[in-house]
Amino acid sequence: MGRVTVRTPMVRVRDGEPSARVDTLVVEEPLEIRLKGKPLTITMRTPGHDFDLAAGFLVSEGVVRRAADITAIRYCAGATADGSNTYNVLDVSLAEGVAMPEATLERNFYTTSSCGLCGKASLDAVRTIAHWTVAEDPVRFTPEQIAALPDKLRAAQKVFDRTGGLHAAGLFDADGELLCLREDVGRHNAVDKLVGWAVQQDRLPLRGTVLMLSGRASFELTQKAVMAGIPVMAAVSAPSSLAVDLAEESGVTLIGFLRGTTMNVYAGRDRLNLEAASPTPMAAPG
Amino acid sequence: MGRVTVRTPMVRVRDGEPSARVDTLVVEEPLEIRLKGKPLTITMRTPGHDFDLAAGFLVSEGVVRRAADITAIRYCAGATADGSNTYNVLDVSLAEGVAMPEATLERNFYTTSSCGLCGKASLDAVRTIAHWTVAEDPVRFTPEQIAALPDKLRAAQKVFDRTGGLHAAGLFDADGELLCLREDVGRHNAVDKLVGWAVQQDRLPLRGTVLMLSGRASFELTQKAVMAGIPVMAAVSAPSSLAVDLAEESGVTLIGFLRGTTMNVYAGRDRLNLEAASPTPMAAPG
Repeated sequence: MGRVTVRTPMVRVRDGEPSARVDTLVVEEPLEIRLKGKPLTITMRTPGHDFDLAAGFLVSEGVVRRAADITAIRYCAGATADGSNTYNVLDVSLAEGVAMPEATLERNFYTTSSCGLCGKASLDAVRTIAHWTVAEDPVRFTPEQIAALPDKLRAAQKVFDRTGGLHAAGLFDADGELLCLREDVGRHNAVDKLVGWAVQQDRLPLRGTVLMLSGRASFELTQKAVMAGIPVMAAVSAPSSLAVDLAEESGVTLIGFLRGTTMNVYAGRDRLNLEAASPTPMAAPG
Repeated sequence: MGRVTVRTPMVRVRDGEPSARVDTLVVEEPLEIRLKGKPLTITMRTPGHDFDLAAGFLVSEGVVRRAADITAIRYCAGATADGSNTYNVLDVSLAEGVAMPEATLERNFYTTSSCGLCGKASLDAVRTIAHWTVAEDPVRFTPEQIAALPDKLRAAQKVFDRTGGLHAAGLFDADGELLCLREDVGRHNAVDKLVGWAVQQDRLPLRGTVLMLSGRASFELTQKAVMAGIPVMAAVSAPSSLAVDLAEESGVTLIGFLRGTTMNVYAGRDRLNLEAASPTPMAAPG
């Protein structure tokens, strides 16, 4: 297993005055994921939970959805001159009957939409490859439960807090208990690691859960929630327009700017036990 | 030209009390970049400066390096049912003699290194496709000049500040004057847009400049600086280990945690006019 952090010498300058220091950095290394020996993708990631990352990536791409779909994951002894293993190349074996991806999600843009390339095509591509829907998930949360999540996430990740360079993704159950936390230099990797942990335990679809993100909410992260069957996604920072569109279309509850006791609910507000808000949401300027 | 922001209804919850609001979100839409009619990549980006994005992406991939390398960029009328243009598909025409990429940077991992896949292979891949080096760039900055950049960046981007969802990249000259600012929902796109602006004006390599980033410094962003010939990169947040490694190997000055009058210099400190710091950088714990 590779190192998550590394210490490095640097010069701190304060008011023009330099002083030599040693800083702790988050490690970034390439990981190649192979499928039945065939290279599928390379991602820049923080080493650790690599099997989870590979399994979760395959969930996001629509290739696997249960533990039995994967028969083995192993590090490949590298093509190094000395035959050593860099632990940066993984091979995933699939069960019989599990189809190899004929196309990535990107290429699915072409096969799923007749509207040229647009946001709508992106939504259609997700709908096409998703194995389940989250729209009917009956789980409910109070605003107090949601407001408590960022502190729980930060408390759980404080070991790595010293680098300031890690994105965190936490999965919470309907009682607000942390089920799994994963961190990575790449926010998409943190979510893939979390989903990969779940699929290997046959927990998909992740009904009744909340995915909590330390940063922003993009289309790609919302897509990963949909592919894992997660009904609620909450982010500390802003969502993008297409993240909101996908959440609405998929029935995902999307919460942004979750800070203190304040949050913005962009989609799926029915899952929050709210006092009746104004039924005319366009009425008040933001 | 597409919209950079969009207004959307949402429910703000404060202390459990909901109120209907309208929020401004950053727009995220897919962009397909074609090269001589052949699909090359799809990126999720904020519309605007799309030609810059395409040109800069091709610089980052090592395909082009001067204005004359690109003979035309145009939006493709989409394959929509009604024949309309989504402005989400671009085609780039290259001058005669400019080679099509035989491989992406990812695939270059395999051809440039015999060490299996590791961080070193990533560095080798960049060295192989870079058209110039930045190590000898003689530009110098005072810490005061560098410390002034974040405020200048924020002042220039305040129009879009209301979404909280945009990454910014600014290019400054040796006098600390802002040459170009680009923003995007994806941090790599913001830098590609900036580099694409520069290559279309035949400004590459960007000697004597500083690239200022609103967020973190990853390997990929450092790679883009190297490919554009930018000698100094400064980020508001943390660098990754591989970003520091690439900066050191390429002779890029890398500054992180640039806040107020404080900054951490991780590589290339010779370009900062510093009082002599301790010559034993490992001496003091950080």
